[in-house]
Order: sequence, then C-alpha cells, then structure tokens
Amino acid sequence: MPTAAESATSTPPAEPERDARRAAILDAAARLIAERGYHAVRVADIAREVGTSTGAVHYYFPGKNDVLTAALRSAVDRAFERQSAELRRLDDAHARLLRLIEMQLPKVGVVRDEWSVWMQFWAEATINPELRPVHNAFYARWHDTIARIVRRGQRQGTFSADVDPDEVAVRLSALTDGLAIQVLTGAPGITVTVMRELLVDFVRRELSA
Amino acid sequence: MPTAAESATSTPPAEPERDARRAAILDAAARLIAERGYHAVRVADIAREVGTSTGAVHYYFPGKNDVLTAALRSAVDRAFERQSAELRRLDDAHARLLRLIEMQLPKVGVVRDEWSVWMQFWAEATINPELRPVHNAFYARWHDTIARIVRRGQRQGTFSADVDPDEVAVRLSALTDGLAIQVLTGAPGITVTVMRELLVDFVRRELSA
Repeated sequence: MPTAAESATSTPPAEPERDARRAAILDAAARLIAERGYHAVRVADIAREVGTSTGAVHYYFPGKNDVLTAALRSAVDRAFERQSAELRRLDDAHARLLRLIEMQLPKVGVVRDEWSVWMQFWAEATINPELRPVHNAFYARWHDTIARIVRRGQRQGTFSADVDPDEVAVRLSALTDGLAIQVLTGAPGITVTVMRELLVDFVRRELSA
Repeated sequence: MPTAAESATSTPPAEPERDARRAAILDAAARLIAERGYHAVRVADIAREVGTSTGAVHYYFPGKNDVLTAALRSAVDRAFERQSAELRRLDDAHARLLRLIEMQLPKVGVVRDEWSVWMQFWAEATINPELRPVHNAFYARWHDTIARIVRRGQRQGTFSADVDPDEVAVRLSALTDGLAIQVLTGAPGITVTVMRELLVDFVRRELSA
C-alpha cells in the first residue's frame, strides 16, 4: 500500500485508502460550501482543509461542479442513512413522520450545513440545467420517504385513507423547504420552533384519520 | 444637461438621466443574474449589456453586492407595483388572492427571472448575514400583501374568521417558495399547472368561510 505522501502525488492509492480520502474530501467540501457558498470555495481550500494537494483533489473530482454534485450526494446519503436507521426503530407511521420532521429541522450543526448545501444546489440547478437530473434524483428519495410513511400510516389506520400520499409528499416537502429558507435567511419570527409547530400542525390537519 | 458620452466618463449626469441610467443597469443586472447566476456575472458584463463602461456602473454601485441587492430591490419593486395595480382593480378578496397566486407563478419570462434572482439571494443570505436585513424587509412586503388580503376576506365574510392571517401568510408563502423551487429545478411532475392547482387548493381548504 502506498504511503499517504506517495498517494498525494503520483501513485494511485489502494482502494480502502482511496475511499477514505475521497470521503474526507467530500466532508470538507460540503462543510466549506455550507459555510462560504459554492462559488467562494476553491479547490485549493478543500485541499488545505484535508491536508493534501489540489492535484489529489482533482484526481478524485475533475471539475468543481463534480465536487458540488458529489458533496450534495454525500450529504444526502449521510442524511438518508441517519434517517433510515432512526426510522426503522419506530413501527408507528405517525411517530416515524414526526421523527422525520424533527431530523430535518435546520438546527445549528450538521443538518443546517446540509440545508445550506441544498440551497446552493437549488440556485445552481435553476441556472444550469445539467445539474437538474442529479438534483431531482436526490429529491425523489426525500419525496418517496414521506410518501412511503403516509402509505404505512394508511395501512395502520392512523392516517386518513382519503389523501393521496404523493400529493401529501409534494406539499409537505414544499412547505418544509419554504420554511427552511425562512429559518436560514433569519426571517423575524420564523425560528426552528415555529417551523416544527407548523409542520406538526400540517400532519395533524392533513393526515388525521 | 451633459451628453451620454460625457456622463459615461467624468461629469456627473443630471438627475433624470441618472435615474434612467441606474434603472437600465439594474434591469441588465437582474436579467444577467437570473440567467447566469450571481457569481458568474461580472460588472463588465453588466456594462456591456447597457452599453457603458465598468466605471459608469461603479459610479452607481460601488461593489458587486450593491448591484445584487439593488437588482433584487428593483425586481421586488417592479413586481410589487405590477401586483398592486392589478389587485386594486379587484374588490373581492378571494379574487385578489387567486390573482396574486397567478401573478407569482414562475412562468417563462419576467416572473421566472424574478424567482431566479430570489433563489440566488436566498443562497447568498444564508451564507452572508449582512444580506439578511435587506432580504427580510423585501420578504415582509410579500408576507403583508397576503395577510392584508386574508383580513380583507374576513371582513367581507368570504374567508373563515377562525384563521390567523399572519400564520396563513407564513404557510402560503412557504408553500409557494417550496413549489417554485421544484418548478425551477425541473422536478418531474411539478409544472406551473400543478403548482397553481396546489395553491388554489390551499386557499379552498384553509380559507373557505
């Protein structure tokens, strides 16, 4: 196996080390994008954060758009795994949906950084149609998670059988995104607590059997 | 009054010409930001679009953030005047709210460009707290427009007296923003038509007396 110094220069690193290095680059990229904004982050900043060379970053990600896409993918994957592990432990669909809402609130820390990356991605995907398929594939996963929980609740008899799970998923995710924007831009009166109340209220109004 | 050539170089232009030049710069800036994204637009691009020098643009707007803020302000002002003129002609609050929804739909053209500028601004204001007061002042106007129409409808007896106009304004604007993101990022199935249906449906469910 090559040493870290070798892999940062010319010899391709062995697979386990490649994966670890790649993950470290993506973590750093997502963190920097969330803090400073996509356009303010240079590949050199990511390299410095990970303690490697710009050449090593380019070895994994040829262009800057590749880093943005991969950083969003990594943030979405991590959120998805975190959520799935938590949600699997809850049998009741109502409890699952409330837990999902709670896990998506843009509190300070990891989740807020993930939201910040999403907002960068929305702005970029609006301008650059090439980014839309990737965005939409990620977004579909979030939509499906909600729709599946609604169907589960309908089978369990806790959610109204009259609602269309996919329509509820569209509306709940749009409401969540819109409220997150207000929280992240510091709109007066729209705190994480208010956001939670409005989303829990949505579940009560729209889904009660 | 100085000629256009003079005003583009050294002599400060007379007031009416200054206003017209300033407005032309802001129109060009908003259009370019909407098309290419805030960070991709250089002051030189704005100058070329208006047919003036970068010095002339800097005469009106010292820094690039000043142009972004002023372009958003101009887009918001224009949308607000357009909306106010239309809405004043409608006495019935229900008709007013449906008209407001219609005017906000991100169809191709001016309104879609305005949404694109908003999305750039959200992403920037998340990263840069200095932009938040300006963002929030603009946003408050949009919120107040909705809340005022809801109160009007309550006085007219067409909207339910049980709802809190400010809470409805928060939820309707969040839903609108979240759906606009889906339309602008090209989410499958979320067209302008679907967005309209979901918003009209919100009014029916939440506000019917």
